[in-house]
Amino acid sequence: MKVLIVTTPVKPIGQGEGGGVDVSLHHIIRALTHRQHEVSVIAPKGSQLDADVDAKLIAIDGELQQSCQVHAPNTRFFCDDDCVLSRMWSAAQAHQDDVDCILNLAYDWLPIWLTPFLPTPVFHLISMANENQQVANALQRLNHTAPERIAFRTHAAANTFSFSRPVTTLANGYPLAQFPFSPDGDGSIAWVGRISPEKGLEDAIRIAVRADMPLKIWGFEQDSDYRQALTREFPPSILQWQGFVPHQTLLQQFQHCSALLMTPKWVEAFGNCVAEAICCGVPVVAYNAGGPAEIVENGTTGFLIRPGDLDQAAAALSHVCQMNRTEVRRQGHQRFSLEAYAERLEIWMGLQRTTHSRHSASKRQDPPRPLALG
Amino acid sequence: MKVLIVTTPVKPIGQGEGGGVDVSLHHIIRALTHRQHEVSVIAPKGSQLDADVDAKLIAIDGELQQSCQVHAPNTRFFCDDDCVLSRMWSAAQAHQDDVDCILNLAYDWLPIWLTPFLPTPVFHLISMANENQQVANALQRLNHTAPERIAFRTHAAANTFSFSRPVTTLANGYPLAQFPFSPDGDGSIAWVGRISPEKGLEDAIRIAVRADMPLKIWGFEQDSDYRQALTREFPPSILQWQGFVPHQTLLQQFQHCSALLMTPKWVEAFGNCVAEAICCGVPVVAYNAGGPAEIVENGTTGFLIRPGDLDQAAAALSHVCQMNRTEVRRQGHQRFSLEAYAERLEIWMGLQRTTHSRHSASKRQDPPRPLALG
Repeated sequence: MKVLIVTTPVKPIGQGEGGGVDVSLHHIIRALTHRQHEVSVIAPKGSQLDADVDAKLIAIDGELQQSCQVHAPNTRFFCDDDCVLSRMWSAAQAHQDDVDCILNLAYDWLPIWLTPFLPTPVFHLISMANENQQVANALQRLNHTAPERIAFRTHAAANTFSFSRPVTTLANGYPLAQFPFSPDGDGSIAWVGRISPEKGLEDAIRIAVRADMPLKIWGFEQDSDYRQALTREFPPSILQWQGFVPHQTLLQQFQHCSALLMTPKWVEAFGNCVAEAICCGVPVVAYNAGGPAEIVENGTTGFLIRPGDLDQAAAALSHVCQMNRTEVRRQGHQRFSLEAYAERLEIWMGLQRTTHSRHSASKRQDPPRPLALG
Repeated sequence: MKVLIVTTPVKPIGQGEGGGVDVSLHHIIRALTHRQHEVSVIAPKGSQLDADVDAKLIAIDGELQQSCQVHAPNTRFFCDDDCVLSRMWSAAQAHQDDVDCILNLAYDWLPIWLTPFLPTPVFHLISMANENQQVANALQRLNHTAPERIAFRTHAAANTFSFSRPVTTLANGYPLAQFPFSPDGDGSIAWVGRISPEKGLEDAIRIAVRADMPLKIWGFEQDSDYRQALTREFPPSILQWQGFVPHQTLLQQFQHCSALLMTPKWVEAFGNCVAEAICCGVPVVAYNAGGPAEIVENGTTGFLIRPGDLDQAAAALSHVCQMNRTEVRRQGHQRFSLEAYAERLEIWMGLQRTTHSRHSASKRQDPPRPLALG
């Protein structure tokens, strides 16, 4: 079937900045085209898709929107003729008759509000938690009238909204052929994340000290005072700073670790590194909260522990070192392959329906009820 | 047929402020219901329709929009979940299947941009000239793809935009049963308008002096320095200030004048008082520019003169005093009755089509080509 993806109006795709939307978009295209769906993408002018993905790009000129994330939760939305966002959705309106459904990746008020104005079903994949009151209002109203049109990565993210009806969760999917595997752990612990207090690195260090295992730390240094304080307090035999490395390098490096440790102080909306570690066969010890609690299967791909319980975490680390890494990887591949992700996307967006459902009359039919697919 | 009118989001209707939108809306409802069309109206909460009009009111809560008129031409548009404007158009979307067409009276970016998103045809009656760049951009794009969806009061207003294709002009219509008639003039000249330099009152006074006729001046005193300067310069035998009076009182008073004089220094988008004077049988002398030039029929309902030519205007005044006031009124009634206005609205919005055209398939048919109907 034919899917039109409308990306974020915050920046062009593939401009080397990397970032979550770029990676997500490419994974979704690969997943859908692998299942023989035709994909076209509306994105801001200057966007470029990876050379190996098969999708038609429709580039739209206009003023880029600012990300909701950088503003206060009560920030209002500008929306007019100069904005790339309104122009992207005019293009979506113009192309809607040529496709079976539209997939919105933008965290913005306009596309959510516009949903009932388009006869072709618009689905919204929401990658962030509740960050803006206007977006939340529009999503909550849509959840009341058409809950099947909204999907989140995790329940943890969905639960930051006040939804009256259940929503679909999709987790994520990865090109696993590029994921390395090491049958044995090297006795170290991996920690991946921004170096910033809300990510709870100090808990991870204290757990590593108790387990007497070195901690390899990957991630962008957002708060250098925080890092310096930790460096002063703990010996280099425990703290092994790895810096911020390209994603493929990260996978190559952390595949050898005996476990990944995830100890955030805030609610993680998903936690890509958790799913990716599991797909590399690296078991995970994570606080039982947020996205990681929905990714780790307790006792199978790692252990979920009481947040802040450093002793329980240290004990769990010695347990996960005994886990069968081949089985951890198998479980990861089963849930987080692009194929499995494509199937979840297909079920959510009703792409498995028969060909005759392409006609506009049946476009208005309700897709299946929301499910936790991830 | 069934017409859904969406009013301005700037203020509730019928809250005693009077104003152009209130009067226009009620005239349009009376015109359409007189022709057996069913009318429903979406308006901000707190709106009240006149007791004698037969229309269903759908009141919408939300934050009122600011008028384009009070802002610089490059002002951008806020548009989100709290705005009454987005909520009014969500209601229009929800009600669209129950009506044959939607008539927008708001001078705002959103409804114009939204036009292609609604299968039920949306028509835009634009009462102002080019006041905002965002509105102009959206109108010019719509004019390119669907010129038949836009109507103005006059070509003068339409010509302030850069349209590539012709648009419909509708003039206005009035409940003429309430319009008084005096078969003879009293030898005075009527002048109606805000007391402000762009309205060109000083030209009218100099013409009155040359014609040796008293000038009765009605209108809101916007610029008191301007009025005082005029009062110092000209004797009370010429200047007869009447103040700002209710509309029906204005008609009762100016019906006795021998002529109406209209001498603006700017481009009048329409000029209701010109059409109303003619409907009362009072002939008009007006500068040959803007809206008045499209209302006055030269030699029949008055004279159009070279802007700024005070001698020609004074000479024209003595000519119009000889005109047959009954014939002036007859001409006015023919063009500006609610019946004639209803017919223009019907032709523009395709309301004369047969009943079977109500089905959605034929809703997408093109209405007749744009015409100068006013």
